[in-house]
Amino acid sequence: MRKVYLSNTPRQKALELLLNNAPIAGHPETVRVTDALGRVTNKPVFARLSMPGYHAAAMDGIAVKAELTFSASDQNPLKLTSGDKYINVNTGNPLPPGFDAVIKIEDIQLLSDLKAEIIAPATPWQHVRPVGEDVVTGELIVPARHKLRPPDLGALLAGGITKIEVKAKPVAVIIPTGSEVVDPGIERGQGSIPDFNSTVIASYLLEWGAEPVIFSIVPDKPEKIRQSVSEATEKADLIIINAGSSAGEKDYTYPVIAEMGEVFLHGVATKPGKPTILGKIGSIPVIGLPGYPVSAYMSLEWFVQPLIFDYLGLPVPKRQKLSVILGRRVVSETGVEEYVRMTIGYVKDRFIANPLTRGAGVTMSLVRADGLLVIPANSLGYEQDQTVELELYRPENELRHNLLAAGSHDLVIDLLATTLKERNPLMNLSSSHLGSMGGIAAIGRGQAHLAGIHLFDPETKTYNLPYINKILPGQKLHLVNLAYRMQGWIIPKGNPDKLKDISDLVNNKLGFVNRQRGAGTRLLFDHMLGEAGFKPDQVYGYEREEHTHLNVAASVKAGTAKVGLGILPAAKAFDLDFIPLVEERYDLLMSDDFFKSKDCKTLLEIIEDPFFKEQVEAMGGYSMRDAGKKEL
Amino acid sequence: MRKVYLSNTPRQKALELLLNNAPIAGHPETVRVTDALGRVTNKPVFARLSMPGYHAAAMDGIAVKAELTFSASDQNPLKLTSGDKYINVNTGNPLPPGFDAVIKIEDIQLLSDLKAEIIAPATPWQHVRPVGEDVVTGELIVPARHKLRPPDLGALLAGGITKIEVKAKPVAVIIPTGSEVVDPGIERGQGSIPDFNSTVIASYLLEWGAEPVIFSIVPDKPEKIRQSVSEATEKADLIIINAGSSAGEKDYTYPVIAEMGEVFLHGVATKPGKPTILGKIGSIPVIGLPGYPVSAYMSLEWFVQPLIFDYLGLPVPKRQKLSVILGRRVVSETGVEEYVRMTIGYVKDRFIANPLTRGAGVTMSLVRADGLLVIPANSLGYEQDQTVELELYRPENELRHNLLAAGSHDLVIDLLATTLKERNPLMNLSSSHLGSMGGIAAIGRGQAHLAGIHLFDPETKTYNLPYINKILPGQKLHLVNLAYRMQGWIIPKGNPDKLKDISDLVNNKLGFVNRQRGAGTRLLFDHMLGEAGFKPDQVYGYEREEHTHLNVAASVKAGTAKVGLGILPAAKAFDLDFIPLVEERYDLLMSDDFFKSKDCKTLLEIIEDPFFKEQVEAMGGYSMRDAGKKEL
Repeated sequence: MRKVYLSNTPRQKALELLLNNAPIAGHPETVRVTDALGRVTNKPVFARLSMPGYHAAAMDGIAVKAELTFSASDQNPLKLTSGDKYINVNTGNPLPPGFDAVIKIEDIQLLSDLKAEIIAPATPWQHVRPVGEDVVTGELIVPARHKLRPPDLGALLAGGITKIEVKAKPVAVIIPTGSEVVDPGIERGQGSIPDFNSTVIASYLLEWGAEPVIFSIVPDKPEKIRQSVSEATEKADLIIINAGSSAGEKDYTYPVIAEMGEVFLHGVATKPGKPTILGKIGSIPVIGLPGYPVSAYMSLEWFVQPLIFDYLGLPVPKRQKLSVILGRRVVSETGVEEYVRMTIGYVKDRFIANPLTRGAGVTMSLVRADGLLVIPANSLGYEQDQTVELELYRPENELRHNLLAAGSHDLVIDLLATTLKERNPLMNLSSSHLGSMGGIAAIGRGQAHLAGIHLFDPETKTYNLPYINKILPGQKLHLVNLAYRMQGWIIPKGNPDKLKDISDLVNNKLGFVNRQRGAGTRLLFDHMLGEAGFKPDQVYGYEREEHTHLNVAASVKAGTAKVGLGILPAAKAFDLDFIPLVEERYDLLMSDDFFKSKDCKTLLEIIEDPFFKEQVEAMGGYSMRDAGKKEL
Repeated sequence: MRKVYLSNTPRQKALELLLNNAPIAGHPETVRVTDALGRVTNKPVFARLSMPGYHAAAMDGIAVKAELTFSASDQNPLKLTSGDKYINVNTGNPLPPGFDAVIKIEDIQLLSDLKAEIIAPATPWQHVRPVGEDVVTGELIVPARHKLRPPDLGALLAGGITKIEVKAKPVAVIIPTGSEVVDPGIERGQGSIPDFNSTVIASYLLEWGAEPVIFSIVPDKPEKIRQSVSEATEKADLIIINAGSSAGEKDYTYPVIAEMGEVFLHGVATKPGKPTILGKIGSIPVIGLPGYPVSAYMSLEWFVQPLIFDYLGLPVPKRQKLSVILGRRVVSETGVEEYVRMTIGYVKDRFIANPLTRGAGVTMSLVRADGLLVIPANSLGYEQDQTVELELYRPENELRHNLLAAGSHDLVIDLLATTLKERNPLMNLSSSHLGSMGGIAAIGRGQAHLAGIHLFDPETKTYNLPYINKILPGQKLHLVNLAYRMQGWIIPKGNPDKLKDISDLVNNKLGFVNRQRGAGTRLLFDHMLGEAGFKPDQVYGYEREEHTHLNVAASVKAGTAKVGLGILPAAKAFDLDFIPLVEERYDLLMSDDFFKSKDCKTLLEIIEDPFFKEQVEAMGGYSMRDAGKKEL
């Protein structure tokens, strides 16, 4: 029978269990100081030699015997002869024996190669760099548990230390498991998943100071997993098994660890990342990570990062915090702590944050995230417009340059984002796919800088303006054309269902994949349905929603839908056929504040740039004939 | 004749000159995604494949055809047979053809291996992970000029990208120059300086994403420097010459660059770091850095970091800012911007900052610094107790655990600092060497947690208490013994001057090295002088001041002083002789707030730990018989 339940242990308690029961043992090692950047000291280090090792001239000039210069003054300049009375010195030269002061080159008058005149006395030891000024023998240079930075290495070498005892990097063996998992370098077949988790896990471990070793992919067979873990115990200071950590039929990570060692915990009360296993084999900590990428990386950060930092003796670095206003409601279930990835923009002097998808399988949500919202286990979530605190992935000062694009998704917005970053590395364009209607609402609430919209008004046969006037009457807003684009049927190559028009779709019950409520493309479909005299419940698949053109095309490609409505480049991306239907106007709606800003100027410059227009039209299905034109 | 003057160009203008005249050319290169952590994209990257590439079960359970489950309810459980009505699936399995929903394992009752019962209908596409949910073909994964983080690599691999075009790391050739400079691995002779700058410079460059190459050390000979620079131009994207950048007799960096290429700037209006050279040879930027370590690293950060980041297309990271209260006055000359290294402690809910030495040759000031105070060119500096803004080297949350020790310097304080860090990596003990009198004053102003003091009162023949009562009458303070320690004459090995007592020192005019005003050791010397009936002006070298015992011993070792007063371990560190004179009490003075804190408890636990006492006594000259005893 399949084991079904996981424990619901709070994250902090789970971490304590791990640190108390299975800390990393590790060992010290000696490395050359010249190679020690970023390493962590195992013991305090005291200087062996002084730097400088002698009294040195601190200025370019002449070395003198101070007591022989006491008579010098403006009125009575003193002439000195080279050799016994003065010696030329450059910065860093040892002070010649018997001399005890340096006079700067600017303060002397050279009368000849061998004669100098001064008009002020020197005080003993002036402009002399005493022995040990930088580092003095016996001085503490760095304490134990210190992560070595560039100047630390300089001070160590200055203090005569060329080798240093540091904590050896813990060897972390990563064992990827799963019969469906294949090497990311291999062209994947139907039903196979590339092992990208191992690369991400190894990269985090590298950043945290461990030495990752990725083992070969192991199929879901207990004896194979056991064999791989057994090999890992020969070299590892820490073993990470990914995945098979849940309680399903083919999840063998728990039984294997339990059989070879001990499991302290199976299941943590936080999402995503709940199906985590903490255990040990011998004295080696073993962590079973979930298979979903976001879950795996979250769990890695909760447990493996503190485990490594505990061994190194360093505090786990904390993320910067920032108070933000929620652009949307974020609900959560009680009893489980939840981590939500968020985008952040700086609109009208306020930080506005919106949740990204909460799917544990969406790596892109981590790529796009600017911060994390942690919802405690006892909370039901937060309302729109509520102020909450986020942990930041990017520094606050960079987020101040984040532009928030709400509204409809279009590939031109992506192109705009990357072009913007190429022009000004500080700038960033974050998109929230709210659909055209959602975009207008976000602009109305002052929670976005711009919104892509393409809303056809059947009455006036025009785009966008009727909706803006109706939804946000009287507001001072600006509307700028981004592009015209062709919408059409996205269908399998060769049109196997012989689709001609919307009646074929309805009458032949072709599986349809729709867009989400509020999307301009959905309104367009509804309008076309109505024109043809059909009702939504006559369309098979009307309820099935995707959020982007590309995702609609992906469903058609996968064969789970026979047709979708979308733009040409989406069909091209999947090598699908496309029946053009309507050329629609895609505009950018902007607040008055943003329209007058320098950032907007940069944006408009890009939109009107001939090279940018060329790039857009090359994608197919776009016309940039009015790009940058003011529509309102 | 020697060229004397450098220009006084503002730092920002100098940087503009460099970026406009000699940006790094560089080139793109293609690397494997699995090796691309931290690299910077040269172009936007779009997904080649979708992840998942098929519709997949999002839960462990059974795949069903939704429309066949619509009749299921509590009252009317529905029995399904395996094969045509349901198929067992695990998370990640492809949805079998013809099936369109998944029911979770928790929601089914398995009646046998081939029969399952459900009590609720499935909605179409429930618990199904649609194709492209994570990454969809054609989607923008990362823009250009993006520094790749671990999850970015995951998304790229998920999107079928295994190789990626990134900016090649710029090759930065470092040319160390100086006839006195030797390899740090070589035992240094009189007048030689180890080349630790190259290691520090290379380490910074590594952190900033360049590829440093350290050339062999070149003596101060123009033809040798020319030859080395010429070799560098064959492979470098950037050349750094260290040092010879000033305008002295043997500073050849300027003439060499000017002859082989062009110099834009010689001299920047900021200290330390003024003698910087910016130029180019062909199209390769060439930077001449000053020789003093702090100057070199500051200049590197002002010019080379922005040069590299400009090439990579990344914003230069900004340091966190923090408002602090100055524990001491910091003066500055007008006309020159100044960077002052500072220590920071968190005393009574306020951040207190004190300047470290401003010597450009003191690498240790960068090792000890918690932050930087930038004094603008038009400012004369700041007064004690004034609030100023610092740039932080360490995060604010860690600085909250920084203990400030003011007062007398003792090696036991260093040992206490490193032991504290070993017990709690978050804690840090920063020392400000103010001398015993300065330490009492700092405690009085609420600007230190503790102060080491050892002040002998000749009247009462007791230590410390009479001074505290006189200087801070009526304040609630605590005094805890740290150690007893032996003070004595530090003299050359074998006592060549046959020193027996203080009258030998005076009568034989032995060169003396004193401690700074306010130091307990200086007061002890003054007391001994008075007891013997001598006056300060009878002591040759009375005005020569050092700030620590070790620096006193270093002067004796170097032969520039014949005798100093200090502690035994300082003499031992330099293999000098020591004539014991007085055993003195060294106590820690603490504010009432600090004494009651958890941090103080940790500190006292260490002081009373037998292992710690043993370590201290092993240094020689210490007795820990009363360590931890309350004296007030």
